[in-house]
Amino acid sequence: MTANHSTNMRTIRTVSEMQATADELRKDRRIAFVPTMGYLHEGHLALVRKARELADVVVVSIFVNPIQFGPTEDLARYPRDFDRDAALLEKERTDIIFYPNDGEMYEKGFTTYVEVRKLEDHLCGKTRLGHFTGVATVVAKLFNIVKPHCAVFGQKDYQQLMVIERMVKDLNMDVEIVPYPTVREPDGLAMSSRNTYLSDIERKKARLISASLRKAEEMVGSGERNTDTIRRAVDDVLHQEDGIDVEYINICDTGTLEDVPVIAGRAVLAVACRIGKTRLIDNTILTEA
Amino acid sequence: MTANHSTNMRTIRTVSEMQATADELRKDRRIAFVPTMGYLHEGHLALVRKARELADVVVVSIFVNPIQFGPTEDLARYPRDFDRDAALLEKERTDIIFYPNDGEMYEKGFTTYVEVRKLEDHLCGKTRLGHFTGVATVVAKLFNIVKPHCAVFGQKDYQQLMVIERMVKDLNMDVEIVPYPTVREPDGLAMSSRNTYLSDIERKKARLISASLRKAEEMVGSGERNTDTIRRAVDDVLHQEDGIDVEYINICDTGTLEDVPVIAGRAVLAVACRIGKTRLIDNTILTEA
Repeated sequence: MTANHSTNMRTIRTVSEMQATADELRKDRRIAFVPTMGYLHEGHLALVRKARELADVVVVSIFVNPIQFGPTEDLARYPRDFDRDAALLEKERTDIIFYPNDGEMYEKGFTTYVEVRKLEDHLCGKTRLGHFTGVATVVAKLFNIVKPHCAVFGQKDYQQLMVIERMVKDLNMDVEIVPYPTVREPDGLAMSSRNTYLSDIERKKARLISASLRKAEEMVGSGERNTDTIRRAVDDVLHQEDGIDVEYINICDTGTLEDVPVIAGRAVLAVACRIGKTRLIDNTILTEA
Repeated sequence: MTANHSTNMRTIRTVSEMQATADELRKDRRIAFVPTMGYLHEGHLALVRKARELADVVVVSIFVNPIQFGPTEDLARYPRDFDRDAALLEKERTDIIFYPNDGEMYEKGFTTYVEVRKLEDHLCGKTRLGHFTGVATVVAKLFNIVKPHCAVFGQKDYQQLMVIERMVKDLNMDVEIVPYPTVREPDGLAMSSRNTYLSDIERKKARLISASLRKAEEMVGSGERNTDTIRRAVDDVLHQEDGIDVEYINICDTGTLEDVPVIAGRAVLAVACRIGKTRLIDNTILTEA
């Protein structure tokens, strides 16, 4: 059965062909969608397997979206390997890879942006100016192109997930957003295409990021509610070794992403740091016992 | 036949019912859509008749969109009369009126906006700050709710038409935008729901707006190409009587809406003025012979 599916996998490179295909499919089939920037890892593949469970047709897009990168960010060196990605997606019984180039997605004169105001100003939005506008814009475009019934997003990019959920609700996009838990390496590091940037020494330090989240979970499990106290403890874990440059440690409302002083019910702990030149993020939901 | 159609006209007030209805209809029928703010006049009805020609199902929305009005604008006094509108739409064999309330369209926490940058800064955008973001946002929402194959927009709101066309292209919305020529009163005044604000005396002065456009067309027909010269002549016509307060007279590129110094090929002449408290706009395409 896997082999059967595999031989039918199609790669579509134009917007018009993808839209026409989606229209035809929607007449009697459900489409599940996984947007990616490629260089797939086990985290992405878990999203694809989830999509496979949810619908008749699985569409995965591979597009490194230039408008979500700042001028000093890693757009040029972002890792790419289409053949490897296609082989992995074939194994997961993907039906369609949508693989447009930059010119197909952003034609001359492009000037329309989707802004999820306020939500995009917190956490990563403070340093990555315009990043979430770039993300919301490309996801709005991809939804209009792929026309999915549902789309699967990883919880590892928690703020991105909140931005997308808010956009879908506010603009009445008829797409069900399915969140999927962060997939981790055996030592706890959240899977990310950017992990490939890490040297061996940096990679070892990186385990402290998830360790710091586990520390916070333990504290909340033991009754701690003061977010300043928890944030200091997270910071301490991240400084157990040299070379982790903390960008933020925030404990926020799970919906609005505004900082909260105490944990009442649920809150999200989100961390961003640099190890060498590599920027890594992770998060966990802290829940009152 | 008209009567038959009429008795089947439905009014839908919720997003979820409209989306489910659209999904069902799209399986084998084409949907044409006319978004309006109600208080319909012959201009709107011409759009509905055009829609009737284009598709199997005609959906007209009636929604006075609060986010496209500035704080000092006429939201509160904008004219409304649903029963009259429904009777007019029934005569034109409308299938569905989508008639949501403000709470249905803008739920608590709404914060997502569609910005058509640069295009929204010209002409009316200079004084009506945020107006075109409000327009683009509500049209994006309505397209996601009504799911039309095509949508008809009047050319009287030329900048609005350009903003919508640009948004549709940039965000890959799979909706054909059908422009429709401005419908005018016998004396040339462009039809507008806001014309009802005019006193008898103001109404007579208002004919000068279209007269000023005709003057410009004549000049271009006679070989004039200098836009400053044409703009001065338009201004002269608008000052043939007291009480017309000119906001702008611009001659612009038909696509980018940037001012042009000479007419080469085509250009749009757009005029906005106040007569008493009423703000009126009009435009024409100037074409080299």
